[in-house]
Amino acid sequence: MAIKVHGSVFSGAVLRVFACLYEKELESEYVPINMGAGEHKKESFLALNPFGQVPGFEDGDLKLFESRAIVQYIAHAYAKKGNQQLTLQDPKKMGPVYVWMEVEAQKFDPATTKLVFELGIKPVLGMKTDDAVVEEYEAKLGPVLDVYEARLSQSKYLGGDCFTLADLNHTPAINYLMGTRIKKLFDARPHVSAWCADIVARPAWAKVLALQKQHSH
Amino acid sequence: MAIKVHGSVFSGAVLRVFACLYEKELESEYVPINMGAGEHKKESFLALNPFGQVPGFEDGDLKLFESRAIVQYIAHAYAKKGNQQLTLQDPKKMGPVYVWMEVEAQKFDPATTKLVFELGIKPVLGMKTDDAVVEEYEAKLGPVLDVYEARLSQSKYLGGDCFTLADLNHTPAINYLMGTRIKKLFDARPHVSAWCADIVARPAWAKVLALQKQHSH
Repeated sequence: MAIKVHGSVFSGAVLRVFACLYEKELESEYVPINMGAGEHKKESFLALNPFGQVPGFEDGDLKLFESRAIVQYIAHAYAKKGNQQLTLQDPKKMGPVYVWMEVEAQKFDPATTKLVFELGIKPVLGMKTDDAVVEEYEAKLGPVLDVYEARLSQSKYLGGDCFTLADLNHTPAINYLMGTRIKKLFDARPHVSAWCADIVARPAWAKVLALQKQHSH
Repeated sequence: MAIKVHGSVFSGAVLRVFACLYEKELESEYVPINMGAGEHKKESFLALNPFGQVPGFEDGDLKLFESRAIVQYIAHAYAKKGNQQLTLQDPKKMGPVYVWMEVEAQKFDPATTKLVFELGIKPVLGMKTDDAVVEEYEAKLGPVLDVYEARLSQSKYLGGDCFTLADLNHTPAINYLMGTRIKKLFDARPHVSAWCADIVARPAWAKVLALQKQHSH
């Protein structure tokens, strides 16, 4: 197969790429990287991503990394496949999609990465959650979600009327956090809560979770 | 005029947007925001950017924020104006441009933001540079620049053969740091050094600096 995703199904960044591939109904091959054994820091993987982080991505001869770059590439390269509204042709409509993609990367991700680690990953690894860290980042996430609540009371999705990459990029972290005590922060904001329920209910995301389950053993 | 940029000429994010506007040879209006007086936290500005950060951007009725989103919008909306290679039509060529735009946002910016503040902004404001912070972030920046050196020994620009948004997004921080003791980190890497000299020598960047100078008094 032409498209290969190298990584771990426990990485939100890897799941983001698969969410996009499934939305676009593209075939791909999952190449597991044993991060516990430090495989992502070895020469063969560094040729895919010089920063030594998953995912690494191949589409034929083309090698890419950084999950947010990969999903933009997929949407551009396979514009006519599967879901054709992940990005929008009309620049006036695409403008807000670009904005909310950046908000995810610059505001939502910095507030949630540590929460996902403390509450979603550590328990799986048998490690103890650090409550002080959770409290610190909960306090950062609240004001960010207030801005989301205001936005989502005006439009169904972050970028506008339809589900786009701006929403998709959030799904892995949202999915992790919905299973933790942080869910209350989302539940307290009705439009955010409805949006979360909507984006994790997508058929493409169900396929991502099935892939994760299949490779978790 | 249709395009308005609200912000301060001391903000790298604001300069990034102007660098793009000048590359595209577009007319725009600069609307100064008095950040010292907290104008970016007031109702009127929050209507442009609910996170209360510069720049705010208007193109007719469309309001956008997040500088990296704004430059993508400009390149898309004004594809046929000025420099037409800031983004590339061929997805296989655009893929690496997306990658290096993300590297700037996810790796370069976190390593340089504090350095720009400590060494570029604080002296202007009459504040004292914190050497411990400089040392900490110097240590983070070095390994990032090693990856850049490897990349730039293979291609003239980050995204490939031509100057793109991937390079442009770096220019404000590079320009600030070239005037500081951190320059030595760039100078120690010949391909990085040549690339820095190239991107700050662009006519569009000269116009940005002229705008900054004009509004600095």
